[in-house]
Amino acid sequence: MSTSGLDADLTAEIDLAATLFDSLRDRSRSRLGVTRASYGEGEQMAHDLMSQLGETLDLERRIDAAGNLYLTLPGRDRSLPVIMTGSHLDSVPEGGNYDGAAGVVAGMATLARWRRAGRQPHRDITVMGVRAEELSWFPAPYIGSRAAFGLLEPEALDACRRPDTGKTLAEHMVLAGFAPDRIRAGEAQIAVDRVHCFLELHIEQGPVLVQRALPVGIVTGIRGNLRYRHCHIAGRYGHAGAEPRESRQDALLAGVDFIHRLESLWLEHERDGKDLVCTVGQFHTDTAVHTMTKIPGELWFTMDLRSEDNDVLLAIDRRLRIHADEISQQRRVRMDLGDYTNALPGPIDPAHLQRLTQLAKTLGIPAMTMASGAGHDAAVFGNRGIPTAMIFIRNEHGSHNPDEAMEMADFAQGLKLLVAAVEDIDAAL
Amino acid sequence: MSTSGLDADLTAEIDLAATLFDSLRDRSRSRLGVTRASYGEGEQMAHDLMSQLGETLDLERRIDAAGNLYLTLPGRDRSLPVIMTGSHLDSVPEGGNYDGAAGVVAGMATLARWRRAGRQPHRDITVMGVRAEELSWFPAPYIGSRAAFGLLEPEALDACRRPDTGKTLAEHMVLAGFAPDRIRAGEAQIAVDRVHCFLELHIEQGPVLVQRALPVGIVTGIRGNLRYRHCHIAGRYGHAGAEPRESRQDALLAGVDFIHRLESLWLEHERDGKDLVCTVGQFHTDTAVHTMTKIPGELWFTMDLRSEDNDVLLAIDRRLRIHADEISQQRRVRMDLGDYTNALPGPIDPAHLQRLTQLAKTLGIPAMTMASGAGHDAAVFGNRGIPTAMIFIRNEHGSHNPDEAMEMADFAQGLKLLVAAVEDIDAAL
Repeated sequence: MSTSGLDADLTAEIDLAATLFDSLRDRSRSRLGVTRASYGEGEQMAHDLMSQLGETLDLERRIDAAGNLYLTLPGRDRSLPVIMTGSHLDSVPEGGNYDGAAGVVAGMATLARWRRAGRQPHRDITVMGVRAEELSWFPAPYIGSRAAFGLLEPEALDACRRPDTGKTLAEHMVLAGFAPDRIRAGEAQIAVDRVHCFLELHIEQGPVLVQRALPVGIVTGIRGNLRYRHCHIAGRYGHAGAEPRESRQDALLAGVDFIHRLESLWLEHERDGKDLVCTVGQFHTDTAVHTMTKIPGELWFTMDLRSEDNDVLLAIDRRLRIHADEISQQRRVRMDLGDYTNALPGPIDPAHLQRLTQLAKTLGIPAMTMASGAGHDAAVFGNRGIPTAMIFIRNEHGSHNPDEAMEMADFAQGLKLLVAAVEDIDAAL
Repeated sequence: MSTSGLDADLTAEIDLAATLFDSLRDRSRSRLGVTRASYGEGEQMAHDLMSQLGETLDLERRIDAAGNLYLTLPGRDRSLPVIMTGSHLDSVPEGGNYDGAAGVVAGMATLARWRRAGRQPHRDITVMGVRAEELSWFPAPYIGSRAAFGLLEPEALDACRRPDTGKTLAEHMVLAGFAPDRIRAGEAQIAVDRVHCFLELHIEQGPVLVQRALPVGIVTGIRGNLRYRHCHIAGRYGHAGAEPRESRQDALLAGVDFIHRLESLWLEHERDGKDLVCTVGQFHTDTAVHTMTKIPGELWFTMDLRSEDNDVLLAIDRRLRIHADEISQQRRVRMDLGDYTNALPGPIDPAHLQRLTQLAKTLGIPAMTMASGAGHDAAVFGNRGIPTAMIFIRNEHGSHNPDEAMEMADFAQGLKLLVAAVEDIDAAL
């Protein structure tokens, strides 16, 4: 392992990053926070800002058919698979400034560091600005990174519509000057065997690093998810006072029973040391007709189950279906869990995980290992078989809201780890 | 006991009742069902219809300061406390034709029976058409019957507004020609010691008689209720994937835990033979901000607990408060059950209950005893110490909806019991 080649002082790069964050915020400020719509103005502005810096740093620029941006510092041997780093440049509506952008800014700062040191890596180092990661705009996961590998299902192009414009994903791509037909045809924009590794730096979206008072997290795995968006219970409305218990078909009590059982399953898995989190984000009687004095005849809810281990998700799913059938019989209701989606967990490369852990120790960066509860573009790279790793930066108040609060001092620690990792990987040739 | 005085053949009175029901329906038909707003057109039409019949039958008419209607067949001894029967003449919006009206129509048919037989009772027999029983129009219980006893709280006159007009109860009373100031002053319109008994016939609002295939129910008690309209749980929103279980403040799981405990309490009381029904009619995360991938930070719900025995309600209430505190601590949320109202159960007079049961047996009317789960004006009379009883008529599809379905054959059985009871009570002088 070598960190000698690069000066340990990153002051200039941290100043550069701070300037980039300020520009991003100033140019995408909205009512409450920042808004950088996928294939919209804010996202494009961020891509343009990175491109301009790419020119200043004399980087090679490529924009693929889906609009993903690749800025490359050429290595001495252009035939070698490249080191890639980066993240996405869109944000949720009224979101924070760092979710996504921090990874691209850190990548650009890494390349700036090489340029300032006047050195050339063995391999190409590419910063990728990924399009359309946030689900708020088009409800399909990882649009930019999946399109880059020719993996975006064609239906997503025509079925996903941006809520603010009503236009489809394909229409927005065309308007922004890209080529959805090539994406539709499954044309890969990145060759898997041309990517040596993918490193993504991202703010932590949970409170773990804040709780543990550590600036940096090293990700052990990206949780996959099993999601039910449209669970429904059909019972029968009835009079709150006059209907005896034994003839009620109470949709709410059935739902309460079900979620109580889900929580018991969760606790059981936790006792067994299995990675799992469960969230019922929406749960409601029919707000149009429910009243205090009517037994609820219908109930809707969602379930979002996440684990680093997809077998855990599939096992839970089987148990939940048995419970749903039992409850339907016992309580005289029809429980329908509806369609589900299953996003595979994103594998983290053990060697890179080990490398990051070791480098943090060597460089005195206070860090811990942790699961990524949120999904990230890195999961797409990992699932393509590309050795992948992730660095988390402490961030208060969660993400996807204007109160996102990453400290530049913490970013500096994460950047230091990324710079060292890229150097180390390049040196390990 | 005597049923000899009145001819057992009630064909003419049943025809009269059918005609009254038809007129009521024809004159208050709305988009889906019938609509007779409290202190509105539909209710007034029903009062006018009964008044006209009162003239035909040569009954004495009185309208009190709250607009309640009293139609009296004078007895031989006017100094004796009167036998009263009746019910309310308003309906919910888009409701059915029988909820309330059946009791007034049955009372009028009873008086018509005396007139047709050319006989005079010992006591006055009065049919009361009660105003404003349905909570849909003005959210205060038993407005007409409480006003009749000088018990309506003055705030109800000014704070309750009809949702369709925005006008207050007092304003509507004035518009309809009544005298809210006398109600405000607590002036009683009925002297308790002038009422010998109150008998209310009403459709059953639950499914018990349909399930048991019986046309008539004899009420053992009118369930009181303990109602929480604004239960609230404040937790903290968080990321569905990134927030570990131990730091979550999940309002939904706290609410599920609470309602699960409520159901356990219910089952426990049921095993102990206690009368109780529990309904959580509204239960919902914040529909404006909830999403599948966000841990719910807030939850709202209602509780409606009913029992013939108010001590059961108060005991449950104490237990629920302990559970709420426990859950708040265990789950790091703030559970606030909010304000509650406690409507006392309406006592049924044991002698009248016994009389109705015996008469049904003697007359061969298939009947069962049962609790009234819904509240009725009879509860106000019972709580004033007036000997009170109720007769239920089988009714499919519940009440408060256009599908309410009372068969005239069942009504005939109930009417027969009411006619016999009035006769028997009058004869018992």
